Amino acid sequence: MQEFNVDVAILGAGTAGLGAYHQASKTTDSLMLIESGPYGTTCARVGCMPSKLLIAAADAAHEARHAKMFGVHAADVTVDGREVLDRVRRERDRFVSFVVNSVKHIPDNQRLKGQARFLGPNSLRVDGHSVVHAQRIVIATGSRSYIPEMLLPAADRLLVNETLFELPQLPRSVAVFGAGAIGLELGQALSRLGVDVKVFGRSGAVAGIADDEIRVLAGQLFNEEFYLDPDAAVSAVVHAGTGVEVTYVHRSRGELTERFDYILAATGRRPNIDDIDLEKSGLTLDKRGMPDHDSQTMQCGNSHIFLAGDASAEIPLLHEASDEGHIAGINAGRYPDVQPERRRAPLAIVFTSPQIATVGLGLDQIKARCPQGYGVGSVSFENQGRSRVLGKNKGELRVYGEYGTDLFLGAEMFGPAAEHVGHLLAWAVQSRMTVTRMLEMPFYHPVIEEGVRTALRDLNHNLDEGPEITDSCMECGPGA
Amino acid sequence: MQEFNVDVAILGAGTAGLGAYHQASKTTDSLMLIESGPYGTTCARVGCMPSKLLIAAADAAHEARHAKMFGVHAADVTVDGREVLDRVRRERDRFVSFVVNSVKHIPDNQRLKGQARFLGPNSLRVDGHSVVHAQRIVIATGSRSYIPEMLLPAADRLLVNETLFELPQLPRSVAVFGAGAIGLELGQALSRLGVDVKVFGRSGAVAGIADDEIRVLAGQLFNEEFYLDPDAAVSAVVHAGTGVEVTYVHRSRGELTERFDYILAATGRRPNIDDIDLEKSGLTLDKRGMPDHDSQTMQCGNSHIFLAGDASAEIPLLHEASDEGHIAGINAGRYPDVQPERRRAPLAIVFTSPQIATVGLGLDQIKARCPQGYGVGSVSFENQGRSRVLGKNKGELRVYGEYGTDLFLGAEMFGPAAEHVGHLLAWAVQSRMTVTRMLEMPFYHPVIEEGVRTALRDLNHNLDEGPEITDSCMECGPGA
Repeated sequence: MQEFNVDVAILGAGTAGLGAYHQASKTTDSLMLIESGPYGTTCARVGCMPSKLLIAAADAAHEARHAKMFGVHAADVTVDGREVLDRVRRERDRFVSFVVNSVKHIPDNQRLKGQARFLGPNSLRVDGHSVVHAQRIVIATGSRSYIPEMLLPAADRLLVNETLFELPQLPRSVAVFGAGAIGLELGQALSRLGVDVKVFGRSGAVAGIADDEIRVLAGQLFNEEFYLDPDAAVSAVVHAGTGVEVTYVHRSRGELTERFDYILAATGRRPNIDDIDLEKSGLTLDKRGMPDHDSQTMQCGNSHIFLAGDASAEIPLLHEASDEGHIAGINAGRYPDVQPERRRAPLAIVFTSPQIATVGLGLDQIKARCPQGYGVGSVSFENQGRSRVLGKNKGELRVYGEYGTDLFLGAEMFGPAAEHVGHLLAWAVQSRMTVTRMLEMPFYHPVIEEGVRTALRDLNHNLDEGPEITDSCMECGPGA
Repeated sequence: MQEFNVDVAILGAGTAGLGAYHQASKTTDSLMLIESGPYGTTCARVGCMPSKLLIAAADAAHEARHAKMFGVHAADVTVDGREVLDRVRRERDRFVSFVVNSVKHIPDNQRLKGQARFLGPNSLRVDGHSVVHAQRIVIATGSRSYIPEMLLPAADRLLVNETLFELPQLPRSVAVFGAGAIGLELGQALSRLGVDVKVFGRSGAVAGIADDEIRVLAGQLFNEEFYLDPDAAVSAVVHAGTGVEVTYVHRSRGELTERFDYILAATGRRPNIDDIDLEKSGLTLDKRGMPDHDSQTMQCGNSHIFLAGDASAEIPLLHEASDEGHIAGINAGRYPDVQPERRRAPLAIVFTSPQIATVGLGLDQIKARCPQGYGVGSVSFENQGRSRVLGKNKGELRVYGEYGTDLFLGAEMFGPAAEHVGHLLAWAVQSRMTVTRMLEMPFYHPVIEEGVRTALRDLNHNLDEGPEITDSCMECGPGA
């Protein structure tokens, strides 16, 4: 058994752990980064990168099939599932290699492989081989897929994002459980690649969309491509030969038992805090076994322990995990001088088609925080000029502002280029721009952003801050 | 001969004229909008809209052919030129119909058709049928294609943007003269649609790109798709049967005479101020026949005459023409109380692939305005994660900031989604954001905007405002 005494120990070498290491290393060389699994982040190995690669192939197939609307005929579009998955893995491995190289640059005496468990508030055992005594500890152990009991009978026919991308070939049919961001991104991508897909959601949620109007529209549009029941009644999942049988109530055909090659569980993720003996850390834990922590400092209570990334169960997005890791690392480095760091304006993007962007405050938060009232503006992309030129004229944007101050508060979008519009609007939220000020900014022509302007003008009118649009063509140009 | 006495006469019912009408009508009902050609703006009829529609078809063909990189095989991509042009015209006509409807809502007694000519400072003759006496006059007569002498022998084989979209079928070959925004947009689109295209530019300019490094890269990348000589030596253009022969010095093969079906002249536009008898307006004209005007008020000298849109020869972009029209209309309406109105941060976009965006100040202006010095940051999109996922990893972004103040000044980009990145950066320029402040904004993952962050971090380091990027993966996430 080796013993180490360090200033800062970091559990997990993922996005948050590496961010914490990078920052803590600015104050001390006495560091230990402990990783129980393979190097490479959740994002690169099994998350953002492989899913976006699969989606890129799916969209290429979809667009080739729809090129005829432009007078371009791609006879016979075929998807070579092996090639699709080979590219996904090849490019994914390249991203992973960057992470692995990054870790390799960390000196050997600052790294340990093995499962860390608390022995006490300041000491950790790593597998059977090491004990690490640390003045401060950052927990950045990430998360793992959560599988509900009901899906367990699927056994070897059960996929999660960790195993989907390892398939040698695309399946013929997949029942996706979960209509959140991951379920819909992967479900739609598989469907566009020719897989027979059905998506079963729970409690009506669709990709985490908060605005009812947008959620209903998204549900409708997804259903034009594949079966999606956001509030599915599934009564049984049974392993059957080289597949799995799902018994559910079909929206129009009543109770059915249907065979699928695989089930894909996209039923949420759980923080990896249950196998590190956290109860020995001295922290007070809630009934889920989670310590309390501050989102501005990432500190657990007043302790020397910090929580960051997916393990914090805050926002499972890479840029947030990275920020949390950096904040935890800064504060672990300078502890006991712990200081709050600013977080960024909320931004979440779902890479479906159309894409989804959620920016700033949601309507529920706005109702609670705006005693003087609030306003909503909207635009449909069906007749928006640029969207129509591109043949991507589907979706809607809703924007929210505060009555009396004209402050822009947030937005939800299901529409073309939401990935980019989301940034523009999130920067406006963080800059505390008024809607009037946003309307003074440049809007080129013909662009999707002209649709944003239409929604903002509508919002400003509804906030009693601007005139109604009476002649869009004369005021904004044809096809704005 | 009818006679009319009005407060405000507006020459031209295009984008600028309609904007002026809309604003002036808020102060007076005594208006006359005079149009010599068909209703419908340059943008909708022969500019932005048909060209973007042609580009959408071209990109669909290009992407179908390149889908194999994703494992998606489109066996036989064929372009039906008739269908392509039919969609271009059908959708264009729809945009034009919005403009025409807009004009139809203007009362009959506020509209005249015919060519207006100045009789004196306050009076205009319209064709042979009317005389309009106006207290104030807005000149918004637009622009037309300029054809150099050398191209005139092409005669019926000479196309301009006004005639290209009327072809029943795509030509087999086209020599494009002019390597500006229009020449390259249309040249690349035709090339991607299977037309044999060569582009002949002048003085080395490429799509108006100001930054040498970006211009050189753009020239190289365009040449991978079609022949582009930004500084072509063309000695003769001769009509020959059902085509035209062009004699030029080929970059690698020396002097050649080559036959093309058509020549497309994209050799600039000239303001329509030479057939309105402007010399009778009382305005002082320069040697080009242009009156002096103020870009904040659109007023000519101290006169009652205002100039707006392409006729002003300022910036031939729809959103600028629209703003100029609105400003001219506001000031013509409230004359003699003429006040400056704010213009927006400069933004120009070229819809080639990759796209080009020019934002804020260019390097020449920056050198003149920053006595303390300036800095440049850059990023290549070759290894940028999201760009690579999408198979669009080409191009470069350069960003500029002021030394000593950290103020973000401008940018030039040749790369993926420049249409959207251009907006983000133009809003930052207009908001007078510092580079440090921009780096505090949200950047999602994986997105093109992470490449923007890399360039901004590089800039901040070069301005002595931030640390060097030492480990991009650890600091920003894999594939940022």
